[in-house]
Amino acid sequence: MSRTVYLNGDYIPEEEAQVSIFDRGFVMGDAVYEVTCVLDGKLTDFEGHMARLERSLRELQITCDISRDEWLAIHRKLLELNGLTLGGVYLQVSRGNAGDRDFHFPPAGTPPTVVLYTQEHPDMLDGPKVTKGVRVISVPDLRWHRRDIKTVQLLWASIAKMTAEQAGKDDAWFVEDGFVTEGSSNNCYIVKGDTIITRPLSNDILHGITRASLLKILAERQMKVEERPFTIEDAQGADEAFYTSASSFVMPIVEVDGVTLGDGMPGPVAQRLREIYIDEARKHAI
Amino acid sequence: MSRTVYLNGDYIPEEEAQVSIFDRGFVMGDAVYEVTCVLDGKLTDFEGHMARLERSLRELQITCDISRDEWLAIHRKLLELNGLTLGGVYLQVSRGNAGDRDFHFPPAGTPPTVVLYTQEHPDMLDGPKVTKGVRVISVPDLRWHRRDIKTVQLLWASIAKMTAEQAGKDDAWFVEDGFVTEGSSNNCYIVKGDTIITRPLSNDILHGITRASLLKILAERQMKVEERPFTIEDAQGADEAFYTSASSFVMPIVEVDGVTLGDGMPGPVAQRLREIYIDEARKHAI
Repeated sequence: MSRTVYLNGDYIPEEEAQVSIFDRGFVMGDAVYEVTCVLDGKLTDFEGHMARLERSLRELQITCDISRDEWLAIHRKLLELNGLTLGGVYLQVSRGNAGDRDFHFPPAGTPPTVVLYTQEHPDMLDGPKVTKGVRVISVPDLRWHRRDIKTVQLLWASIAKMTAEQAGKDDAWFVEDGFVTEGSSNNCYIVKGDTIITRPLSNDILHGITRASLLKILAERQMKVEERPFTIEDAQGADEAFYTSASSFVMPIVEVDGVTLGDGMPGPVAQRLREIYIDEARKHAI
Repeated sequence: MSRTVYLNGDYIPEEEAQVSIFDRGFVMGDAVYEVTCVLDGKLTDFEGHMARLERSLRELQITCDISRDEWLAIHRKLLELNGLTLGGVYLQVSRGNAGDRDFHFPPAGTPPTVVLYTQEHPDMLDGPKVTKGVRVISVPDLRWHRRDIKTVQLLWASIAKMTAEQAGKDDAWFVEDGFVTEGSSNNCYIVKGDTIITRPLSNDILHGITRASLLKILAERQMKVEERPFTIEDAQGADEAFYTSASSFVMPIVEVDGVTLGDGMPGPVAQRLREIYIDEARKHAI
């Protein structure tokens, strides 16, 4: 059945949802996005996603006057119209249709293009990746250097994912100057003894909303966290590894560049953190 | 008057030209482009642009079975329909509409999205930039690292252009590891004595079609060329500087990061090369 999507104020069938060939998102990669996870028909970490969206828009000087209450109403209406209970809501804001292609920003007052739609992810809670863990390969990090802004310039991330798949693996880790930055669409962690190690925030990586929520959970439980860069060799010598993202929660990693971690099964820390994270997300979903 | 544009086989009014919100160009920056200059109603360096287009598509594994003859026919029909004599033809090919958003490439057989349209540039031959020269500022090069592939991931280039404009200047030069890579949408050169210096080809810069044509002209005339990286300080100490692009030909630069070059007017080498390049382009236009 066709989804109903939101486009610039209208709720319309997905087949009819189109943007101009002059849209800045289409000709310049000039758009930002968010994906909010849906559990039990409710939105998780919604405020975090909206705060990051506002920051992305601000950093790029894209004007969009939709309020948080309005965003929430749109998200909820889409969930209702499409009967979504497990999956996510994708949201994209581009700098709009300039009427022609130009490196200069369109004139002030040009309305942004706003698109939202639901995506079902039936495997999100208990798919094979969750039970078996994922295997990653490393690729050089060739992306642009403002990864803290969540833009749609995702071509290299997409190629990295395809490269992993063609190698018979599940995902790719980006490596820059010898250190892992992040995964193709997630933040990365390794576990050594009782310490969880993850790269600190900077313009080099996305400021993951799930990452922030997980770090809060770890702090509340007084678990040891070191925010420092790590290498592929560090990961291969670790007890466990995992990644976090809005649509994967906490995902165990069992292999890094062909080296099996531990006994090759999801580790106890990753599994436990996954349970806790999902419990907390459910508790605070709106 | 509204332009007629080409979209996936049809010639339609520009206001009606739309693509799906799921188009890979809109959600992933997954598209490549070319701009071919039009002089006297004819296409310049057409074969060069088509060869680069084919390379970009191949590097990204985007399948598009339009032949060079067909591309030429589309370009010419657009020129005729829109009565364009001076300007350019913009061409964009995206990986197409996958029917949903996914980091994985759409299934084989998914048709690419193909868009072409004309753009008038009445100032192209004799605008104020040509007579006065352009002033550039430097900005860090934050773009992705496959700049040899001409993708639409142009957000940083657009921001660089806006940054220059906000500083009261004309364009920006990207600097990486201390060396100039290229301009926001052009290749850069400096002139020291009788030597023209420009960065060698690599994945760090676009393989400019105008650059290739100019280097051929310089070789035929046995002029001295050094292909090596240069710094902002090198440029500030040079006799002249200029840039090349399909829609600017050879453009004199008179100021780099606030330092005036020579007497602050377009230099003789840049001016002469501009004349020669335009003559040659006219001679070989099709």
